[in-house]
Amino acid sequence: MPQSSSTLLSKAQKLIPGTLYGHTSPILSHPTTAPAFAIQGQGARYIDADGNEWLDLMCAYGTNILGYAHPQILEAAIAQLRSGDCLNHPTPLLIELAERLTTLIDFASWAVFAKNGTDVTTYAIQVAREHTQRSKIITIAGAYHGTAPWCAPGIAGILPEDRAHIHSFPWNDLDRFQTLIQSYPDQIAAIILTPFHHPNFAPAQFPSSEFFPTIQKTCQQHGVLIILDDIRAGFRLHLHGSHIPFGLVPDLACYGKALANGFSISACLGSETMRRAAERVFLTGSTWHSSAAMAAAIATLELIEKNNIPQFLHTQGMRLKDGLEALAKNHSLPLVLTGPPAMPTLCFQDDPSLIKLQTFTQHLMRQHVFIHPHHNGFLCAAHTDSEIQAILARAETALRNTAEAIHA
Amino acid sequence: MPQSSSTLLSKAQKLIPGTLYGHTSPILSHPTTAPAFAIQGQGARYIDADGNEWLDLMCAYGTNILGYAHPQILEAAIAQLRSGDCLNHPTPLLIELAERLTTLIDFASWAVFAKNGTDVTTYAIQVAREHTQRSKIITIAGAYHGTAPWCAPGIAGILPEDRAHIHSFPWNDLDRFQTLIQSYPDQIAAIILTPFHHPNFAPAQFPSSEFFPTIQKTCQQHGVLIILDDIRAGFRLHLHGSHIPFGLVPDLACYGKALANGFSISACLGSETMRRAAERVFLTGSTWHSSAAMAAAIATLELIEKNNIPQFLHTQGMRLKDGLEALAKNHSLPLVLTGPPAMPTLCFQDDPSLIKLQTFTQHLMRQHVFIHPHHNGFLCAAHTDSEIQAILARAETALRNTAEAIHA
Repeated sequence: MPQSSSTLLSKAQKLIPGTLYGHTSPILSHPTTAPAFAIQGQGARYIDADGNEWLDLMCAYGTNILGYAHPQILEAAIAQLRSGDCLNHPTPLLIELAERLTTLIDFASWAVFAKNGTDVTTYAIQVAREHTQRSKIITIAGAYHGTAPWCAPGIAGILPEDRAHIHSFPWNDLDRFQTLIQSYPDQIAAIILTPFHHPNFAPAQFPSSEFFPTIQKTCQQHGVLIILDDIRAGFRLHLHGSHIPFGLVPDLACYGKALANGFSISACLGSETMRRAAERVFLTGSTWHSSAAMAAAIATLELIEKNNIPQFLHTQGMRLKDGLEALAKNHSLPLVLTGPPAMPTLCFQDDPSLIKLQTFTQHLMRQHVFIHPHHNGFLCAAHTDSEIQAILARAETALRNTAEAIHA
Repeated sequence: MPQSSSTLLSKAQKLIPGTLYGHTSPILSHPTTAPAFAIQGQGARYIDADGNEWLDLMCAYGTNILGYAHPQILEAAIAQLRSGDCLNHPTPLLIELAERLTTLIDFASWAVFAKNGTDVTTYAIQVAREHTQRSKIITIAGAYHGTAPWCAPGIAGILPEDRAHIHSFPWNDLDRFQTLIQSYPDQIAAIILTPFHHPNFAPAQFPSSEFFPTIQKTCQQHGVLIILDDIRAGFRLHLHGSHIPFGLVPDLACYGKALANGFSISACLGSETMRRAAERVFLTGSTWHSSAAMAAAIATLELIEKNNIPQFLHTQGMRLKDGLEALAKNHSLPLVLTGPPAMPTLCFQDDPSLIKLQTFTQHLMRQHVFIHPHHNGFLCAAHTDSEIQAILARAETALRNTAEAIHA
């Protein structure tokens, strides 16, 4: 007998600190209309605990790039589970996956694997510190690189020492970047960058035309390494990594999320120059050699390449963006989809309190379309033309209701 | 066409820093005789990349508590994979697992879930720091709590700041413990403890009769929290957590490894008093709400309870210990199995260079029995009487060869 979401939530209040935590907490985003529990997913749709079917634009916050419960990925992973998943040693799939990734990502000559994005962003800054024998790391203000004390949002349980050598500047602000570089000569190990800026509670921002070239040149001059955090965008923007379309050449790059279509695996890739330092940094975890996750990653990358998924997501993302923006215009609502179309962030112009945005996403939720008001959305391979049409049809109702609420 | 381990290893040299990393690196332990790659596992046996079948006493370094590729665990997890694994929200299994764990573990009133042991030991120290508003953490010298900068073995890529507030003392040394307590009045947030001490390259040590009672009392007097790191021992020593047989009452406890028989999931459980601080510490990860791992954990805990696996592992561990020690005595080899029989650590008396131990494990490997010379072993539910007998039969040959080598 399935339990309703209200029963589950009242149990969660007792059993889980803060009821639900992290990015899946409904309280953070949609206090009244967002589902709190899901029970099933297929393609670009899922069913919540109360039996409602949702059209999905979050894709499990990025892990789902090919569609929920994708048959070929499941087949590859399940065969490996039946054969023995976590053993005393890695399986040959470790080598096959490392080969595939270092072939796919041009600058990389080696790979290591972990479970979380945080595992590999933390490893990458350790490798950078070990290689340079410097302490300081430059980050972009408001960028997300995981939940470790050096980078987690918030300050609870964090010591000043955890961030003593983390220095931030605003995205695209090259003056502030140069000031940091000048302020800490021979002390900066690395800068960690996402391919585009996707802060919460704000529109996405692309790099300005001079941003990455200036960073690349300055870092080379000062012996500062470049770490690409491609965990969120990886394999959605370009077959060969998100540094390609943005013209960045990193020394280290981190992948996760879409890498195995929902199976737990992350990766750090590095240039030949980083190898010796990478060898020295200790890295391991109880289930890191899970062969099922590696089989899923290999099968996922195969399909991404074979079907040129980044191109497909761009095309479908443009359909969604053009469709939504046109519908909104009909209702005199200044809605724009910012960032890459494959990873759209909703934004209303003239909406400093974000109330228009929240009103619209609440109305979308009432039509059972799930997208987060303050986090970028994600498209997947199951967002066919008919799925985009279905989303736009529901969005039309949501936009009409939003216009009525706002203009009332 | 399967690749031989030597082909795989030569590829690994190019593709992976240090060839293979972490606890599965054969180079760390058995340069010549240990397998580097596995391809299949079933019960308490696995097959390496060259087609050799191994009798296993490492159980994937602890994750395998019920046997590799256990049909009931696979059935539970695969059903959930087909239904949709990582979705936008947790499934009701989150609540079911939290209910089961907080019922099983007496002191706990809440639970959170992550992927790695490191995720939850790090979270636990953050919760302790947040609750106490103090910085310092006491650890046992040589204890392993994961790979985060505050606790990782080694120093590569680690800054002094990462460990500025970590203070260690030797296991069972209550004088040194009291000195630490006196040295940092009102500054110590917590002590983190394993239920018994299992350092690498040394015999396991149980707590002395006064160790935990004194720590418990002193911590209470000084407002210092107790964090139990039960990741390695959890569910192997006692149905209700390893603090029970050792008489410790923690404020926070961490589980992983055996929790889902190899599926990636870890947990932090806490007392009611810790709830508010736990709510404030940010915690999340891309695949942390994987329902397949939660289904596997629920199924694993069900079988552990139903079949009283800790009792079974103790019985079979005693068979192994008594059998091995008796066989060794016949060859005048002073072999003892230290620590709990379910998690034996091999040790030769009068072996300061560890050469006897290494010789024996090399000879065991030649008989295709896998146990690490410098890390505790693990038993699992598939270690039936006949499997223990098979291991002892091969150990007899290994001990004879060891005696010949040592006494030559």
